[in-house]
Amino acid sequence: MLINGAWRTAPADASTFSPSNPTTGETLPEAYPVASAAELGELLDAGLAAAEELRTVPVRRIADFLNGYADAIEAATAELAQIAARETGLPVSPRLTAVEIPRTFGQLRQAAAAALTGDWTQPVIDSANNLRSRLEPLGKPVLVIGPNNFPFAFNGIAGGDFAAAIATGHPVIAKAHPAHPGTSKRLAELAFAAAQAAGLPRAMVQLFYRSAHADGEAMAADARLGAIGFTGSEYAGRKIKAAADAAGIPAYFELSSVNPVTFLPGALAEKADELATEFSGSCLLGVGQFCTNPGLLLAVAGEATERFLTLAAANFAAAPSGVMLVPSLPRELDEKVAQLTAAGAELMGRGTGATSPGFLAQPALLRVTGENFLRDPGLFQSEMFGPAALAIVAADEDELVVVASRLHASLTCSFYTATDGSDDPAYARLLPLIAQRSGRILNDKMPTGVAVSPAMMHGGPFPAGGHPGFTAVGIPASLRRFGALKCYDNVRPNRLPASLRDQNPTGTMWRVIDGAWTQGDVGA
Amino acid sequence: MLINGAWRTAPADASTFSPSNPTTGETLPEAYPVASAAELGELLDAGLAAAEELRTVPVRRIADFLNGYADAIEAATAELAQIAARETGLPVSPRLTAVEIPRTFGQLRQAAAAALTGDWTQPVIDSANNLRSRLEPLGKPVLVIGPNNFPFAFNGIAGGDFAAAIATGHPVIAKAHPAHPGTSKRLAELAFAAAQAAGLPRAMVQLFYRSAHADGEAMAADARLGAIGFTGSEYAGRKIKAAADAAGIPAYFELSSVNPVTFLPGALAEKADELATEFSGSCLLGVGQFCTNPGLLLAVAGEATERFLTLAAANFAAAPSGVMLVPSLPRELDEKVAQLTAAGAELMGRGTGATSPGFLAQPALLRVTGENFLRDPGLFQSEMFGPAALAIVAADEDELVVVASRLHASLTCSFYTATDGSDDPAYARLLPLIAQRSGRILNDKMPTGVAVSPAMMHGGPFPAGGHPGFTAVGIPASLRRFGALKCYDNVRPNRLPASLRDQNPTGTMWRVIDGAWTQGDVGA
Repeated sequence: MLINGAWRTAPADASTFSPSNPTTGETLPEAYPVASAAELGELLDAGLAAAEELRTVPVRRIADFLNGYADAIEAATAELAQIAARETGLPVSPRLTAVEIPRTFGQLRQAAAAALTGDWTQPVIDSANNLRSRLEPLGKPVLVIGPNNFPFAFNGIAGGDFAAAIATGHPVIAKAHPAHPGTSKRLAELAFAAAQAAGLPRAMVQLFYRSAHADGEAMAADARLGAIGFTGSEYAGRKIKAAADAAGIPAYFELSSVNPVTFLPGALAEKADELATEFSGSCLLGVGQFCTNPGLLLAVAGEATERFLTLAAANFAAAPSGVMLVPSLPRELDEKVAQLTAAGAELMGRGTGATSPGFLAQPALLRVTGENFLRDPGLFQSEMFGPAALAIVAADEDELVVVASRLHASLTCSFYTATDGSDDPAYARLLPLIAQRSGRILNDKMPTGVAVSPAMMHGGPFPAGGHPGFTAVGIPASLRRFGALKCYDNVRPNRLPASLRDQNPTGTMWRVIDGAWTQGDVGA
Repeated sequence: MLINGAWRTAPADASTFSPSNPTTGETLPEAYPVASAAELGELLDAGLAAAEELRTVPVRRIADFLNGYADAIEAATAELAQIAARETGLPVSPRLTAVEIPRTFGQLRQAAAAALTGDWTQPVIDSANNLRSRLEPLGKPVLVIGPNNFPFAFNGIAGGDFAAAIATGHPVIAKAHPAHPGTSKRLAELAFAAAQAAGLPRAMVQLFYRSAHADGEAMAADARLGAIGFTGSEYAGRKIKAAADAAGIPAYFELSSVNPVTFLPGALAEKADELATEFSGSCLLGVGQFCTNPGLLLAVAGEATERFLTLAAANFAAAPSGVMLVPSLPRELDEKVAQLTAAGAELMGRGTGATSPGFLAQPALLRVTGENFLRDPGLFQSEMFGPAALAIVAADEDELVVVASRLHASLTCSFYTATDGSDDPAYARLLPLIAQRSGRILNDKMPTGVAVSPAMMHGGPFPAGGHPGFTAVGIPASLRRFGALKCYDNVRPNRLPASLRDQNPTGTMWRVIDGAWTQGDVGA
């Protein structure tokens, strides 16, 4: 653990844990400490003191830190990918070296740029009333809890929530996922060195991996905490949310999702083969271990649908087994497949690859009639984490509309429709039902890619996300989650923060002055 | 009650309640129904159906409704003020006719204008990735719960949260405060007529006054609800918050606050007399029944402080008794004064006016040493609702800093400092401690005025508000609370909402296109 700039191992009498190598199934020799309640308190104390120090630190140093850290990650790409591959089973290339690590240092650099522009603070000046407002740091550390499936891009010590919390001027207490502690430790070493080089407080970045559940929940409700960013399972997320909510601590969640993909009849009639390949590829990508994995397919019965499903099922059956992140996942997937088939789903395609050594899962495509789905919508749309999907084949469009009306919240919803417009009436009926429960609406596209764009929404209504108005990915929107809105009412000019003075502090900062967005000065 | 366009009284066997006339103390003859759980369900069903209808309603009709309602309130000012004065004891003039009612129709008109510009939706277009996002309605009704102290400007059926929820395209289920049901009923009649005239659904506005607590909490957790806006007491707010949080329903709170006002030595040396008048006036205004009432005064011991406090105490002692909103309030104020004096506070000035007929309260100014305050900071900063304040007189600046570090969250914090800059070092020490826990920072100004400005922040960290990033007052910021962020990823141009198409739909809407705010088109 990294507590206030010092690395600490577990005392001899304290509990430790060891990660596994998913590819071999072996438990790795390293032991990492489980944080005690007292240690969580130390993290909070040090984080709070660092937040106080940060009040007078120029934003330039925050940006220097983020850029320095990004450079360090880029320079260590090969080493980091090796460490992470051993702990996660994710392929070194292209996944880690060509995709996830570049995404990670890329978003750290975007966050650095956003810290410098300050646009995330959305300054608003009402000159007639001499009222000036902006978003400001919360003045306390942010706890960032990372998931198992992205050892870099969503890691508590390097990912999107980390970048957003740092860029907005907060010390981060990272709870990295215990499935990849070595990766997180190496990242924290790079982060700490970069923060020190930039002249930031020793507790700017801190790291722990595990705690007793009760200690973690107490931490989530601690008044020393400014906010929480969480990515992970709905089960754990609900516990953290309940604790934070009771204490009034803003907490942001990116939880599980089944991501319904609707293939309307005209689209399948046009190109069933191509779409079967596209769907299978998206579903099997990364062994299905994405929060945007398309787990639910919606279609109407018909010849083209049969052709599409038959081709897709063949792809699933022919796909090799995939290494999953933790030992429980292949077993849970098998159990879910058994549960759905017992409830009336048909197993259309199942991989036949090896199931050992390591945490290997066989891909699975299932189908169920709309009628059968409607008998137990909760069961049939519960998440099958991994390379698996359930196709709901409705008898007709009307039944598909009823199915759509029973869907739960998701991060995304995709629609494939005919180019000639013949599916448009069905699209118009389905869209409001499904889109209201989703954060991102896609046309003719699978949901697995999540661009780090200012226009991204990676979140959704509860329980896909914690709040329908916030995104975990995208800059500056993800940064605004960590802002406290402050109004300066008749405050003397020399006491105003630079971004609220008459003169634009950078010459390029976007501010609302008397109702209009401008990069100019007050009175200009 | 107004349920789906029909007025309903209580059946003979159901419970009813009657409001009081605070000026006379008498119970008024009218009886109003207590909503049953079944009736709350009817409100939700009708509200949800109305939200679905609204999907295809042009925003022009929403604006017409808000403007028509504003006009109707303005035209009925005299009548409404009479009804409200009888139920609240608030003076017809200037409070109701010259201040609160004009503020109410003024903010309804501001909300209408905001609905038309659509700026609250903050459209963001990333043309390279063809990603387009904006805030949209939640697709479900909003429950607005109003307080006892503003029968118009914060009423569930007419106030700021109502205006914000309607302007963003939501049906409102209003829970008006049971202390002024006649006022709320008349407002709902005007609102319903205006909504009908604008061609909106019958359940666009619905009204109830009371329910059993358990039924209200179940309603706050109902999946048919899109969001909640609550203004009122911390006690009730915490119950509603817990229910909404558990269900993942976004809920916004504006709760109680003691609003510390710091008078630094230089300011008092310059003009103790003038400041004593200013402070007393603000504290006694409206019988102290404002959420921004300055209930806590911070100062350092000294001659000027004594002069200031002596003058202020004389103002409090000379002030007439004031009519409070509900019968329990004068009694609770007396109890609080007794509690604080028992704990070591000194009663410096107490009104000697009549305590009957009606709900009359005698103003009270108390003082306590910093040392004594620090023995029980929780007790000494608990809210004394009404025309009362506690002065904390610290022995020196260092002790004042310790006192400041123990303050809880507030909506506002005010600072009076010398014009010659001699107080600036003390200001610099105190500001970060106090401002971090407040939503609005004032200089040389009392907090009781809350302008409806785009730069206002009327909220604060929990439990002054529900979330430090949101304001209950101010347009368009208060509107954004009710938005769901939606991303359109590769969506075909003809299916995009107008505000996300290449062409600016109004020619004046502010959008972010490829990183810059603009009123132009994509590619322009």
